[in-house]
Amino acid sequence: MGRPRTPLIDRERITTTALQLVDKQGEFSVPQIARALGVQTGSLYHHVDGRSGVVELLRERVCEAIDGGTLDLEPWDAAMAAWARTYRSAFAAHPRVIPLLMTSPVRAPRVLAQYERAVGVLLAAGFGNEDVMTVIVALENLVLGSALDLAAPETMWELPDDTTTPRLAEALTAVATDRADAAFELALGAFLAHCRSMVAGDDGQAP
Amino acid sequence: MGRPRTPLIDRERITTTALQLVDKQGEFSVPQIARALGVQTGSLYHHVDGRSGVVELLRERVCEAIDGGTLDLEPWDAAMAAWARTYRSAFAAHPRVIPLLMTSPVRAPRVLAQYERAVGVLLAAGFGNEDVMTVIVALENLVLGSALDLAAPETMWELPDDTTTPRLAEALTAVATDRADAAFELALGAFLAHCRSMVAGDDGQAP
Repeated sequence: MGRPRTPLIDRERITTTALQLVDKQGEFSVPQIARALGVQTGSLYHHVDGRSGVVELLRERVCEAIDGGTLDLEPWDAAMAAWARTYRSAFAAHPRVIPLLMTSPVRAPRVLAQYERAVGVLLAAGFGNEDVMTVIVALENLVLGSALDLAAPETMWELPDDTTTPRLAEALTAVATDRADAAFELALGAFLAHCRSMVAGDDGQAP
Repeated sequence: MGRPRTPLIDRERITTTALQLVDKQGEFSVPQIARALGVQTGSLYHHVDGRSGVVELLRERVCEAIDGGTLDLEPWDAAMAAWARTYRSAFAAHPRVIPLLMTSPVRAPRVLAQYERAVGVLLAAGFGNEDVMTVIVALENLVLGSALDLAAPETMWELPDDTTTPRLAEALTAVATDRADAAFELALGAFLAHCRSMVAGDDGQAP
């Protein structure tokens, strides 16, 4: 008998299985992936470079949904705003992947290529080389924190008794259904306004 | 024989065990806690209100490390900055708890009490009731995204070959060891500058 034309495991299937596990339980292990695919754990190592290899496959998969074309927009702050929005959407679909990816070094070539483009946008905008990564990391923190919030329940605060926290109760009556979007746009707008002042040569620091 | 003076399980022990599980594996289950404590799962339900009850115990435990006294500082923006810093430190100690807490409604009374204080600070500063929760959520997103980043490895980008991403490679040479703190302070400073413009009656919006 020849080999089956569709292999039982390949990197695509390993990635899909790992993502399903993380979406469901917040974590994965290589033996769990093997069990789900009905193969021996050892067979998986012919396809991926161990656990950290799978993490990088997850990074590539989730980041595929980021529209890198946003980084070609003009001017630079429109590019960063649009990139932040597509970045947030991509991770909001898989919020439980976020802590895994944020605590493991970035090695996936296609993801590094997107950082390269973002660095290029900021350098062309006039940011100093010493500020570029700080700006990108700050933007990512804001994006990923907001992506987690997008996975939050509609009613995020459940007050047992309005009289104990009356001002909170009153403030919650004013919360709109687009709470998560409003908070993200507020933080993004604030951040980009500050970034504009950095390249405009203003002091840009809080007093 | 009388009852042992130290009960085998209590809410403190349940919380400690759940936190250890989440720190280690990103998740917990009530049966896992029972196994770790050497008791029947059913016994746990005499002490906690199911899984969501344990999540609230985790929230209370992690938030105990937030210094709520920061909210008494003057002026209001110094209070918010100091609160954001202590909030970030508390969660940076348990980054894997963040997605669990962000996707489950807040019900812990002591945590709600801290929101009540934060709302009071912002109302006294002049924020409209309709903006208060948006400001708090935006600040939390920034804080929690930055707390996750604090758990990131020192070398967060591993380039296989500098020539493929030359601008990224160059930008990374300029990254200081306090990368995470610098990014957090940049975003926090930007956010509070914008918040000051909101209460100063400026337009406060990006053009």
